[in-house]
Parts: sequence; C-alpha cells; structure tokens
Amino acid sequence: MQILIVILLMGLLLASAAPFSSSQSDSGVNVWPKPRNFSWPQPQAHLLSPNFAITSPANHKYLSSAVKRYHQLLLSEHHRPLVNPSSSVRINTSAPPLLTLSLTVADLAAPLHHGVDESYTLTIPITGGAANLWAQTAWGAMRGLETLSQLVWGDPSLVAVGVYVWDSPLFGHRGVMLDTSRNFYGVEDILRTIEAMSANKLNVFHWHITDSHSFPLLLPSEPELASKGSYGSAMQYSPADVTKIVEFGLEHAVRVVPEIDAPGHTGSWAEAYPEIVTCANMFWWPDGVDWADRLASEPGTGHLNPLNPKTYQVLKNVIHDVSTLFPEPFFHAGADEIIPGCWKADPTIQSFLSKGGTLSELLDLFVNSTFPYIVSLNRTVVYWEDVLLDDNVKVQATILPPEHTILQTWNNGHNNTKRIVSSGYRVIVSSSEFYYLDCGHGDFLGNDSLYDQQTGSDTGNGGSWCGPFKTWQTIYNYDITYGLTEDEAKLVLGGEVALWSEQADPTVLDARIWPRTSALAESLWSGNRDAMGMKRYAEATDRLNEWRSRIVARGVRAEPIQPLWCIRNPGMCNTVNSFG
Amino acid sequence: MQILIVILLMGLLLASAAPFSSSQSDSGVNVWPKPRNFSWPQPQAHLLSPNFAITSPANHKYLSSAVKRYHQLLLSEHHRPLVNPSSSVRINTSAPPLLTLSLTVADLAAPLHHGVDESYTLTIPITGGAANLWAQTAWGAMRGLETLSQLVWGDPSLVAVGVYVWDSPLFGHRGVMLDTSRNFYGVEDILRTIEAMSANKLNVFHWHITDSHSFPLLLPSEPELASKGSYGSAMQYSPADVTKIVEFGLEHAVRVVPEIDAPGHTGSWAEAYPEIVTCANMFWWPDGVDWADRLASEPGTGHLNPLNPKTYQVLKNVIHDVSTLFPEPFFHAGADEIIPGCWKADPTIQSFLSKGGTLSELLDLFVNSTFPYIVSLNRTVVYWEDVLLDDNVKVQATILPPEHTILQTWNNGHNNTKRIVSSGYRVIVSSSEFYYLDCGHGDFLGNDSLYDQQTGSDTGNGGSWCGPFKTWQTIYNYDITYGLTEDEAKLVLGGEVALWSEQADPTVLDARIWPRTSALAESLWSGNRDAMGMKRYAEATDRLNEWRSRIVARGVRAEPIQPLWCIRNPGMCNTVNSFG
Repeated sequence: MQILIVILLMGLLLASAAPFSSSQSDSGVNVWPKPRNFSWPQPQAHLLSPNFAITSPANHKYLSSAVKRYHQLLLSEHHRPLVNPSSSVRINTSAPPLLTLSLTVADLAAPLHHGVDESYTLTIPITGGAANLWAQTAWGAMRGLETLSQLVWGDPSLVAVGVYVWDSPLFGHRGVMLDTSRNFYGVEDILRTIEAMSANKLNVFHWHITDSHSFPLLLPSEPELASKGSYGSAMQYSPADVTKIVEFGLEHAVRVVPEIDAPGHTGSWAEAYPEIVTCANMFWWPDGVDWADRLASEPGTGHLNPLNPKTYQVLKNVIHDVSTLFPEPFFHAGADEIIPGCWKADPTIQSFLSKGGTLSELLDLFVNSTFPYIVSLNRTVVYWEDVLLDDNVKVQATILPPEHTILQTWNNGHNNTKRIVSSGYRVIVSSSEFYYLDCGHGDFLGNDSLYDQQTGSDTGNGGSWCGPFKTWQTIYNYDITYGLTEDEAKLVLGGEVALWSEQADPTVLDARIWPRTSALAESLWSGNRDAMGMKRYAEATDRLNEWRSRIVARGVRAEPIQPLWCIRNPGMCNTVNSFG
Repeated sequence: MQILIVILLMGLLLASAAPFSSSQSDSGVNVWPKPRNFSWPQPQAHLLSPNFAITSPANHKYLSSAVKRYHQLLLSEHHRPLVNPSSSVRINTSAPPLLTLSLTVADLAAPLHHGVDESYTLTIPITGGAANLWAQTAWGAMRGLETLSQLVWGDPSLVAVGVYVWDSPLFGHRGVMLDTSRNFYGVEDILRTIEAMSANKLNVFHWHITDSHSFPLLLPSEPELASKGSYGSAMQYSPADVTKIVEFGLEHAVRVVPEIDAPGHTGSWAEAYPEIVTCANMFWWPDGVDWADRLASEPGTGHLNPLNPKTYQVLKNVIHDVSTLFPEPFFHAGADEIIPGCWKADPTIQSFLSKGGTLSELLDLFVNSTFPYIVSLNRTVVYWEDVLLDDNVKVQATILPPEHTILQTWNNGHNNTKRIVSSGYRVIVSSSEFYYLDCGHGDFLGNDSLYDQQTGSDTGNGGSWCGPFKTWQTIYNYDITYGLTEDEAKLVLGGEVALWSEQADPTVLDARIWPRTSALAESLWSGNRDAMGMKRYAEATDRLNEWRSRIVARGVRAEPIQPLWCIRNPGMCNTVNSFG
C-alpha cells in the first residue's frame, strides 16, 4: 500500500517536477545539500518518539554501522535552528510521534564504487507513526538517513512530517582532496573530515598522501620510505591507520582514493633511496636562474629518475602495497608538474638528452613502466591533467587508453576540462580558479620582499599564485560542465575541492574546508540553480548559515559566512546594487 | 654584587649595542617577540630543578597571580622545539640545576596604564643555581617571566643558562581589536585571546563591544540595550563577565579598553530605544540609490540621533556604567563612518538640514554633548580617525583638545597617520591596508553576483574591500611611523590589528588572530629590523614557526605559516629571485 502511494507520488512528480524542487521551506528546517525533489506542502512537525527505532536489512556490515550511528544521532542531537521553525512549521506535540523508520534496500551487494546508485526515497507521513526509506543500495540508504537526521531538531526532538523526498546526485564524483605531506594530519582529523563529508553527501576522499615534503605512509614492502621520509614516527600512517580510515569511509559511504604522486613531487623518497631521486635536497630556484630553469614549482625538490631501474622496483612495491591497503578501484598516480630543471640536474638524464632524447620521452618511459602495472591490479588510473596537457613535458595520448584513464584538471578553468573531454577522457574537475581551498592566503616563502612595502600594501592577489580566496559563492556557482557539449559533459565524473597544505594543518583544517566544501556538495549533488533555472546562491545563503551551524554543533569547526544578524533579518544582508 | 654585574653588563651593552641584539641563537630556543637585547654567548642549558621556586615581592595581587601561573608553566610545559636545540646548545644535565628565580620590582604601585614602564632585566648565570629578574613595575616583571618561560623546554625541563636579557618595548600601545557585535564570542574566547596576547607581550585588548548587529553588554543602568539588542541571553556579557575579563587582563598585564561605538554603528540600540536611532532596520542600500546615498557601509543600519535629548540620557548612562566597569583610563567612543543617508532618513534631521544646518554640525553637537562627560570621568577619549578626517561628516578640531583625545587611523595607510599627528594628536595605527585581519576573505553579502563567473573566477581582491589577505609578513614589515618627522613619530602611541567579525566567530578566532598578531607583537616591541638596520622577516620566519608551535601547544589554534619541512631545512624555503 505504501509502495503504491509512493508510485502515485512519483507519478505526480514526473508530471510536474518543478513544484517539488522549489517547495523546501525556509523555516530553519532544511536539508543540505538540497535534495533534487523535496515536498513538504504543509510544514508540520511531530515529536520523535524516545523509543524511535529503525528497522533495517540485516547482513550489511557498513549499513548496520550507519544505522546505529544515525539512530543515536536522531535521538541525541537536539539541534537548535538559528531561525526558530515554529513560526512557519505547525508543531503538534500531541499528534502521534514518529516511532519507526523502515529501511528497504534493493541491492545490498552493490559495492561503493564510482557511479553506484546513491538515490533514495524518504517518506514521513503526515500522520506520524512510521517513516519509510527506500534505496537501491546501502550507500543510497546512508544518504537518506542523513536527510532524515536533518529533518529532526529540538528538545524534545521534533521531526518534520508530511515530507516526501526523492533524491539522487547530479554527479557521481564529489570529493575533497587533502595533502598530508606538506603538513601532517592525524587519523582523527581525517576521520572527522570524512564524517563531515558524509553529512554533506560527498563521496570521495582523495588522499594526496605523499609529496616532496614528507612520506607519511608506512608500507610493509618499503618501510624505509616512511621511517626515513616522514616527519617522524608520530607523523606516519600505519597500515592499521589506513584500514581504519578506509573502513570508516565505507561506514560513511565515502570512498578513499589514494594518491601516490610520481614522478614529480617525490623529494621525500630520497631520504630512503637517494639514488632514484633527481635534484633532491637542492635549492629550488638558484640565484640568477630563470623561472623556466628552476628545479621545483616551490621549495621541496625531487623527481623520480625514469632511467634508473631501481625506481620501478621501489615504485611497484609502493603501488602493490597501496592497492592492497586501498580496495578502491581508482588509483591516483599524480604525474603533475614535471619540472625540466630537476630531471636535467641528473647526469644520466643529461646523457640521455645529449643523445637526442626528450623529457617527454622520459615521461613516456615512466608511464609505460608503471601505468600497465596499475591497470593490471584492476585499477583505473587517475592522473593530473599535466600528463597530457603540460607545455613542456607530456606523454603521447596513445599510451593512456581512455578506458583505464581519468584526468583531473586544475589549470585554465573550463578550457583544460574541454581539452580533456574532447579527447575522449573522463575528467574530474578541480579548477584552481574555483576549487582550491588554500588560495588567497599569501605565499609561504621565508624571505619574500613582496610584503615589505610601506605605501599601499601588497596588491592584487597578495602573493598567492591562485588568489584571491575562493569564497563559498565562487565554489557554489562554478559549473563544471561549462562550455561543453552534451556528449562531452557526460565525461565529467564530478569535481573535487583541494586543500594543499603549505599553510594548513590540523589547527585550521575544518575552517579551510567547511563550509566552503558544503557549497561544492550542493552544487554537485542537486546543482546551483533553482526550478526556474536561476542561480540560487542568494536563497542558499540562509540555508548554508543554518547548515554550518548544525555541523559546528556536530563538532566541525566550520567558519561563519555572515554575522548572525543576517539570518535573523532575512534578505537584509543582500545587495540590489553593485560596487565600483 | 649581582647588581654590580648587571651594571657592568649594561655598560658593555651601551658601548656596543649591536652584538647583543643579533646574538640570539637560531637553535630552536628563542624568545618571541625578540628582546631588544639578548645575550647568550655560549649557548648552554642546565636542568630546571623540579623544586624550582620563584621568590617575589608580596602585596601585589596581580603579580602574585602571574608568578603562580608562570611557576606552574615553567615546571609543566615541557615544550618540544621543532628543531632540536641539542645540536647548537650544550646541554649539561649534571651541572647545577636552576633552583630559583629572584624577582625584584622597584615600583609595585605603578598602575597598568599607557606608557607604564614594561622594561625588565633577566639574568640566568652560566653556573645555574639562581636567576634574577629585575623590573621597574609588576607589569614589566610579567614580561620577564614570559621571557624566562620561553627559555625552558624539554622533559625533563632544561633551561638556558649564561643568558642576559635587557628588554623594553619600542611602543607603549600594542593591541588587538576584537568586534564582539557582528558575531558573539564567549568569555573563554576572550580570556584565551588575552592570555595569548600576554605571551606575545601585547598589552591592549581593544574591545569593540557594540555595533549595529548586536549589543551584547548588559549594563546595570540600561539593561534593555542588551536584553533586547543582544543575540540572546546566552550571548551577553554580564557585569561579572566584564570584571572577570578586566581582572584577567590585569593578571596578564593586558589593558582592556572598551569601545562603545557611536553615533554610527548603533542599529542594535533601536531594539530597546527605537526613538533615538535613525534609519534603524532599514535596507542598507536601496535599489537604484547611489552609493553616496546608502544608509550604511554594510548591512546593519542605524545611527544615534543627535537631536533627540533622550539619546544623551541613554548614552550617558552607558558611558557611566562602562567607565565604572572598566577602570582603564582610555575610553574608545567610536565615531567612525557617519553615513549621511542614515541621518537624512530622520524627519527631525531633515528639518534641521532644511534650515541650513549641516551634518558636520550634528556631529559637533553629538561630540560636544558626550566628549566632555567622558573627560569628566577622567578618561582619555579615543576616536576613529573619521571624526576629524571624514570627507563629509567631521567635527571641528577645536572641540577635541589633543590632551584628552587620541585618534585611531585605519584608512589611506601612512597618509592619515601623518595628517593626525601633524595636527598634534596622538595616534594609534590600525591601517586597514596592513593591520586588518579580516581582509581577503571575500564579502558577506548574501546575493552578490560577483561570484558567479564561469571564465576566470573573481579577480583582484575577490570582493573583499580591503583585500588581499594580510600575511604575517605584511603586518611584520609595516613601519607605523613611516613618513613622519621625529617629533611627529613621538605622537604614535603604537598600533593595533583589528578583527571585524562579519566572517569570524569563536570557531576561527585563534587562526584569524595568530600567528599574524605575533608579527605585530614583535614589530611593535623590538622592531622589524636587525642590528644592521635591515628588515629581518627572513630570519624571523624560523623563529615564528617555533613560536607558533609553542602557542599551539599552549592551546591557541594558530595557523601554520609553512610546511614543517621548511623549518627542518633552514633557508630552503627562501627565494633569491622574484616572480613576474
């Protein structure tokens, strides 16, 4: 009978999609990211019974864990909205409380891979009593549980009733990249980030584990990389740590995609194996040398030497161990920023070049010596765009079959995304102009005279190569398929914000990521436009204020986006004019 | 005998000042801000005895509290420097441990006012045993105790020996301004900030308590201002809270200077007294209206009405209560950003203007009706520069006698500072181009289309009126007396960084303030130049890394300025070239 009602509702929905998507209340009760279809025509709330129970499918380790977690959250959160919902929601505490959520999953076996069905349907009848959550997969069920949790508030707990939600993401890949090499983050920082990602319905934690600055990953086959290349024994990830993080991800429907960046960004490898790293521990940009001839993009030099067989011996051990530790089918192999000067600093490479070889041939050699091995481990290889688009050092596209390769774009906004997809490759968008969370914070060089000016301070970007600061609106409004044809757009898997850690570490992790990454989450889940096709950043502001407040209460130190006054005075912090 | 040695040492010092100021070790053992004179010619360390004791003068409540606090810190901190000092410091754990610090204060009665002597002399003999700290005042003694605490590290605790420090600040006013109106901060946040300020030898907490957004200060004579104008009962400062903060400040040698901003920035007063506030709760910049005719600089409107006698009745009650709660002789009365449109929105003011009156005459009236009262309470009045320098609405200088008036500059860099001091006024420098901690973070407007651009993101300052972000180097390198004559420079009391809270609240307080404010602290205490007169920001980088690490360990969530790799590889994160 209930299924019949849902079918009828869905029929209504298909007949007129728009009304549903614009009917979410501005009552302080909101779901972030905004669901694709959310209907709450007569905003009412009943009590959530203290005996509220969730009936769920047995035999799914991760879903059971999520159910337990949400059950506890639902009963104990007692969220206090910034704007009291009682003015717009009819609260009926004498009506039947919500007693149960019945959870149904069609395909419990579906693994958490890219493209898995994350849709769910949630109904909370206006009569109270029993709510229903249907999902195709366990992962979609977790999305629906999160939605339910955001429809509960107050003490005693109230729950929205008369609600119908049908929801599913626009993009399958919605991620956060975190660099744990330049500065170290503890396991608890990563877990807290994954938990917050899950609350935002994000599903990929792209872990940029290693770089030139430190190698924090302790690998069974190559333990010296971490024992010598990490910042110290207290700043390493053990295999048990990785397993904990991966399992935690599964419990939160968040994939953990490892990145081992190579052949560039590998200075830290030289602590264990100096013989396989060119230009390691050299000054990054010697006096009088042209920028084109520098040894690194920033302090921290070192590239793996493609001509040394030992390089592949070590690297294959690393790849093997990492693929064992991370069940995820995507393997990010880096390949960004090959700096000619670093390879040219090596005598064997000098000899190779003097015989007519090119740097791009060296990269071909490197990729040909590693890519097939990664593919043989049943992995899809993700590279940064540079491997194909770099001006100086890039491979021939023929050696990277699109069926096994995904490119992640970061330069030149939509132009590089267009170049990648028009070549037939799938793409993950991390445009530094829109999605880099570290920008606008100056630079970290130790002696930059740029900042010593008495008349007018540093202007423009203030020394930040990718400045200015990316506001939540900048992130929210970016359309990752901008300028693409319909067919090209199908190759866009999704996007990731990125936090490079030159000037970030656990003290500021939460504030750098949140709530700006919530903006990404909504933009990639249900888009940045309203039912009329207009950008909805204005309407999103109040909702983001509310959502930020809730995640702060959940223990995430997200930064504020406005004075509290603004949400208390709706519309008053808007502008109808423009400056300048 | 010890006094004789000190006199001899000071003789040496006067004979050749330079060697002392450049002899601080780069060993990981450092004092921030760098003392004016620090001599540790043979870096050695002994144990700090577990029975270490401080003998101090009796009968000073605040000094006794500080001594107790530092005694505990010295014995329990066990700081771990990022760079192990053992490579450059000879550690002799079998030598006599440091057993005592003998503290001598010449003038225990000196109150914590502007210009109080904060100098101290600290000697830790190379034989260990007994250290000595001499200070003119209790407040200088606290500075010396902080210095000693930074010369202790490790577990078991080691202490530098063979150290001689003579120290005194370049500027008497070294402050942080915090806006607690746009977003609220708890008492514990303010106390943590004051504690961190004290560790940085900063001495003025400028508390911008009220503004248009909320009135969080509960005043005995005007309780409705807070009960109606605050963000809620949990977001108010009671008289007991204020006393706690003021007393905590005294225990840390940090003055607490209250600001009650008026007649602008008073929208929140209208919740209790709508009749005394013009343009309250109006939309800040109506559609089609020129910027010059807006009602406020940003959302949140409201000015006190100078023509309504009730205004002064309420304001005098406020001033009276505030001066009772805050013993501090400076009273900051605001007076920034009189926006013509707001006063012009009021019928009585319209009538006044139609009869030939001017807005500047209204401000004269307002100041003449309040300034003498504040002075009568034995207060020096601090105003923002606008009261004299605003293009449209300003008073005649004759009504502000320089002996009772200090101006705080924030616009046009050194130009406005020059204008103020050349008129004979004392000045506190808070240039928004150098010292505003909120800049470079975008804007908080709820619907700004600036951030909706698909090709190239927002450029330039990213919508931040005072962007870009002020890096620690920008703050460190600014010379607040730039362009002044020697006589004019004497009128510069010091400087303050300012955190306006449109996009800040307790979640991000520490990271917005620290370690950038440490840069201010050193620049104003001992300057930004080395013994050769060269800017020392390069050398300061490693020391700031170390200092930031120590204050993080003390519980302040200061942001990192570099990858840990940089301090582990001295000089490698520098540049010898420039971009562009």
